[in-house]
Order: sequence, then structure tokens, then C-alpha cells
Amino acid sequence: MERIERIREFGGWLDRYTHDSYTCNCRMTFSVYLPPQAEAGPVPAMYYLSGLTCTDDNVRVKAGAQRYAAELGLALIMPDTSPRGEDVPDAPERYDLGQGAGFYVNAVQEPWSANYRMFDYVNEELPALVERKLPLLPGRRSITGHSMGGHGALISALKHPGMYSSVSAFSPICNPVNCGWGHGCFGAYLGEDREAWKAWDATELILAGAAPIPLLIDQGADDEFLADGQLLPEAMQQACDAKGFPLTLRMQPGYDHSYHFIATFIGEHLAYHARALADA
Amino acid sequence: MERIERIREFGGWLDRYTHDSYTCNCRMTFSVYLPPQAEAGPVPAMYYLSGLTCTDDNVRVKAGAQRYAAELGLALIMPDTSPRGEDVPDAPERYDLGQGAGFYVNAVQEPWSANYRMFDYVNEELPALVERKLPLLPGRRSITGHSMGGHGALISALKHPGMYSSVSAFSPICNPVNCGWGHGCFGAYLGEDREAWKAWDATELILAGAAPIPLLIDQGADDEFLADGQLLPEAMQQACDAKGFPLTLRMQPGYDHSYHFIATFIGEHLAYHARALADA
Repeated sequence: MERIERIREFGGWLDRYTHDSYTCNCRMTFSVYLPPQAEAGPVPAMYYLSGLTCTDDNVRVKAGAQRYAAELGLALIMPDTSPRGEDVPDAPERYDLGQGAGFYVNAVQEPWSANYRMFDYVNEELPALVERKLPLLPGRRSITGHSMGGHGALISALKHPGMYSSVSAFSPICNPVNCGWGHGCFGAYLGEDREAWKAWDATELILAGAAPIPLLIDQGADDEFLADGQLLPEAMQQACDAKGFPLTLRMQPGYDHSYHFIATFIGEHLAYHARALADA
Repeated sequence: MERIERIREFGGWLDRYTHDSYTCNCRMTFSVYLPPQAEAGPVPAMYYLSGLTCTDDNVRVKAGAQRYAAELGLALIMPDTSPRGEDVPDAPERYDLGQGAGFYVNAVQEPWSANYRMFDYVNEELPALVERKLPLLPGRRSITGHSMGGHGALISALKHPGMYSSVSAFSPICNPVNCGWGHGCFGAYLGEDREAWKAWDATELILAGAAPIPLLIDQGADDEFLADGQLLPEAMQQACDAKGFPLTLRMQPGYDHSYHFIATFIGEHLAYHARALADA
């Protein structure tokens, strides 16, 4: 992997890397924040998965997470939201499919399946790479994300028991098999067999008996996509209630879907993950 | 003034307004963050002046200032960097002149003089407007800014003794009469009489005997524009040494000119201003 940018921030380093991904079959970009504590020895890693239309840059500019990471001694690992490049299939007329909209699944349908394997990229290739190359404690990981990335964080933790010490999400797409965004992407990437979609849906995974893991979700009560039926936290709550799954779902009055909402609560999320990682 | 956007953040409100400016003779946009404390009564105001190419949006998205403002009970007032609109003169081929580059002076040269009066806008029209319309303590103001906006903050405080309780700046253009950015803008806005430029230059104002005010400057030691001779904090330091002016200039090793630098230190700046405002 090649470091293409290095910026000093909160006493640590905000770095950007590119590398040839064998999972996505293209050049991939990601960012890492190393807190000051990483100068003295390896630190735990907090993965942040971004939402539709984002790259690795949005969260590092807008969320204010680096301050808390520097206080808590956590590295932030910030992947892109899809494969990229001229040779990678895209749907340029749509913001919710193709480049910028990988949905953190492994596509099986043409033309997407050669590159759109973000689930394995985020959960296998990227952790192995950064734990080999950077001052990270092997296997000490937690994961969070926003919207499409909240969905990605949830299914990553639910499908890989033991891989993450804790999981949280901001306004996640909780039940994609039952919303427009999910229908559009899952149909394209996974095909028309809707039973097969359930393996990539956090609510369905919990209903199917996924192993418990500490799960924190913050949702803005005035989120326009909540009102539009894209996020469906009530379905997640019902599934957790039915299965006795330990969910903390906080509806935050007045908050919307933006990074201003994330900035407000990301300090609490990182503190929550730091506690879980310290106990791991 | 008309509120065109309202976003919940850190328990307060991030609002955006537009209004017809009699100073700039165009519709102007600005943002305000009201901390939770403003629900109970009026609060002091912290003005933040942005740098070249910015609007009111950059700082509110990138600086992480709202968290500290909410903790400290400060309102943030975030003006645009120039007049705007199709009827406003521009130099579209240049990022450092015209729209986005008002330089916080009152232009006297055609075609700029009808609109480019950002000094009076920031120091007269805008404070009078927001103190009349919003829950702000009249006359309780401090000011900061970045780069071109750091220059703006410095000259605002130096030319208006008593108006601001304290002033600070991030990587300010300290001595525009002696740098390329200043030559380009001052020549266009103020004309070719270089003696007249000195009334809009912080270093020259201090040399001319400006009244002391607490002054904090943070400057990244690895800032590309510092190396390029655009910022000249050493000239400011020499002027302050010569006149006994109370300057705290901190060179921050490894930091660049970006908002990642601002985010790192803005908490200390807001705490510094909050102390000065509490003593005011």
C-alpha cells in the first residue's frame, strides 16, 4: 500500500493510502487516523463505514471523530464506499447504485460481481492489510457507520461473531429488504431471489438467530429518510425484542440525517467502543 | 432576515440566514450556531471569518467548533467571505480576487467599490442585525478567523478598539502589503497608493500604534503558504516586539494550512475567548 497524503491532526496523523485490492479488482483508497498513543505502541482500531455518495473523505472532514480518537487512543479506519475507476461498472445516473453505493455486500450478479465485493473487502482484506502494516493491535476492532454504512457495520458484526468487540450505527438502513434503497441495490447486486437478500439484512440476521453483541443505534427523529421509510429502526427494535437481542436504540429529537447529527453523538459512540475494546 | 435552514447540533441550532445587505448592495448569506444556553437567555458572540474560496459553510462543517461553543455557551457568527451574485463583479479566473475573496476591506476602486465593503459589513451591519434579531448579549463579541479571515479578524479588532473582547487567528495573512495575495487584492480593491494599504494591514496597524488587545495566533510550521511567504507571522512578531504589543504566537510543528489544523486548536481558541468574554 502507498501513502498518498499525511496531515497532522490532534497530535496524531491523518493518512490516506491506496492499494491494489484483490477483492475488488481495482485500486482502492482508504484513510487512517493514528492517535498520538500509536507512537508508543499498537492501538485498537475503530472501523467507520460511510453512507451513499461518500468517499473516505467525508467522515474525516465532517464528523469531528479525530478529537475523540486522540483522547481515547483509538485508530480510525475509514474505507471508501465502493470500488472505483473507469474500469469499474457504474450507474452514473443513480446516486444509490454503483460507484459510491457498494452497500457492503458481495455482488453475485453481472456486471457488478467482478468488483463489488465490499463485504469481504471491509471484513477481510482491509483488516489483514492494516494490521500487518500499521501499529494496530491484531484482532482488537470495533465498527460503526452511517446510513448505508450503518447497515454495513451491523451486518459486518452480525455475520462475523467475535470479529468486533462492539458495533454501533448512526441512522442505519436497518431492514434493506423492506425499503426502496435496499430493493434497488439488492436487486442489482444480488439478483431477484429475495430469500437470498436476507443474509445481508441486519434485522433478518437477528431474526435468524445471530449471536448477541453490544449494539448501539442513534437515530434522528427528524431524519427525512426515516420519514421516507428507508431506515426502519422500528423493524430492528421488534426483531431485537422478539429475540432478546441487546439493542440500545436512541431516538434523538430534532436531529436530521446529516453529519451535524453524527458530530453531536460520535464522541459517545467512540467512548462506548473504547470501553468494549478495553474489556476485550 | 430570512432563515433558510435549521439543523439541530450539540443540543443547539445551526441556522442559515439570508438578508438584503445595504453595505454590500446584494443578498448576503450567513450562518449562526446558537448553543443550548441561548434557550435560557442571551449569550456572547464569537465571530469567525473564513479564508479564500470559502463560504459560511466550510467552518460549520469542518472545524468542529460547535461542540466547544455548546460547552462554553458561545454563539458562533459565520459570515460569507464576499458579496455574491450575478450582479456582483467577479474575477472568475482567479480564486484570490472577487467572489470568495473579499479580503475584509472596503473597496474604493471600480468595479469593486459598490459591493466589496466586507469590513463594514462584518463590523457594523452584521453585528447590529444579529444583536437585534437573535438572543445575543449586545456588545459582547470576540473574533477569530483563518488565513484571509485571520487577517480580517486582526484588522477588525485593531481598527475597532473596544468592539471585541479578544481576537485570535489561525495562520493569518499577517502583513498583506508585503505578500502576493495582498498585492493582488489590495491593488484591485484599494488602488495603487501603497501607503493607503497600510490601514488594512494588521502588522502596519500595530506599528502605527494600535491599542493593545489580547491576541493569540496559531500557525502550522509545515503550512505551504507560510513557506511561500504569504502569511509572514515573523513580521507580526517583530512589530509586536517593537511596540510591546501582547502577542501569543504559537508555531505548531507538523501542522499544515487545512481545517484539520483548525479543528485541532479551535477548542483552545474558543476557551480563550470565553474567558475574555466572561471578564468583559
